[in-house]
Amino acid sequence: MRMAYHLLQRDRKGAQLLATSLQQALDQLAHCDFCNNFSEHPVCALCLDQQRDASSLCVVEMPTDLVMLEHTRSYDGQYFVLMGKLSPMDGIGPKDIHLDKLLKRAQDGVVKEVIIATNFTSEGEATAHYIGQMLKSRGVTVSRIARGLPMGGEIEYVDSGTLSTALLERKSIS
Amino acid sequence: MRMAYHLLQRDRKGAQLLATSLQQALDQLAHCDFCNNFSEHPVCALCLDQQRDASSLCVVEMPTDLVMLEHTRSYDGQYFVLMGKLSPMDGIGPKDIHLDKLLKRAQDGVVKEVIIATNFTSEGEATAHYIGQMLKSRGVTVSRIARGLPMGGEIEYVDSGTLSTALLERKSIS
Repeated sequence: MRMAYHLLQRDRKGAQLLATSLQQALDQLAHCDFCNNFSEHPVCALCLDQQRDASSLCVVEMPTDLVMLEHTRSYDGQYFVLMGKLSPMDGIGPKDIHLDKLLKRAQDGVVKEVIIATNFTSEGEATAHYIGQMLKSRGVTVSRIARGLPMGGEIEYVDSGTLSTALLERKSIS
Repeated sequence: MRMAYHLLQRDRKGAQLLATSLQQALDQLAHCDFCNNFSEHPVCALCLDQQRDASSLCVVEMPTDLVMLEHTRSYDGQYFVLMGKLSPMDGIGPKDIHLDKLLKRAQDGVVKEVIIATNFTSEGEATAHYIGQMLKSRGVTVSRIARGLPMGGEIEYVDSGTLSTALLERKSIS
């Protein structure tokens, strides 16, 4: 409400710009045929980029997650954006997160590994499990991003669940 | 200072108790011959416990870390407490964190795996690297607790370093 009053009283030009931009986004943005992310064109720039490794497909919940992963500069494969997560409480089932599109993509013959990078919340974990089983049963190689202690993490201040997982999923030193 | 004033003015009995307890701790507490943790006896209760798996040895920086790991109830092996970490800036080198004692313990013929559970701070990581190389070169099996996203972790809010590690150390789904 405060933003609306501010725009109408003090920044009518900004309000016009925002209205036009929103209308343009509504009119022009659709989903990329390959990665399902928002895109102005049938295939988005990232999917068209020949420099990227098409054999690796990283599955994320939302476009913001893709942006975060790009910020790490440590992944050069491609993505698939679910645009949501399984959430029976909100009536969101497998059909609502574009799994048919993901399945087609994962079995296109180019993708060698699917990396599931959904959140470690209960819904994200359930989504990861569902997708993992679905792809596994069709012979696709699937992996899940690692759980454990975060960077700078101190054992004294970390929750029991994380510590327990870190211990269970320990890595042998070579 | 506030605690001292409180004890002297309002809780002289508590002050006496604290003084006696501290004196007793100073007089009676030494280090366990096996795990190097504080102990009133030459060998501590945890090291004497026959129920615990003596083939697994978990290396931690401080007694509080041991307590945290015990709280998870997911580890039933034994421990070695370094009572510190490598920290050249503070003049703490390999000789100050009882590595000779650890080495003796790790090579006693019973220990099959050493799990390094130092913190994921720069000093904890350096300590883990040093111990890892030291034990590896002597043919001991060594592992490190996992790095990655913590429980409940959301990709949108996690730092780039952690995300990058989680991606790099992804686990294949079986």
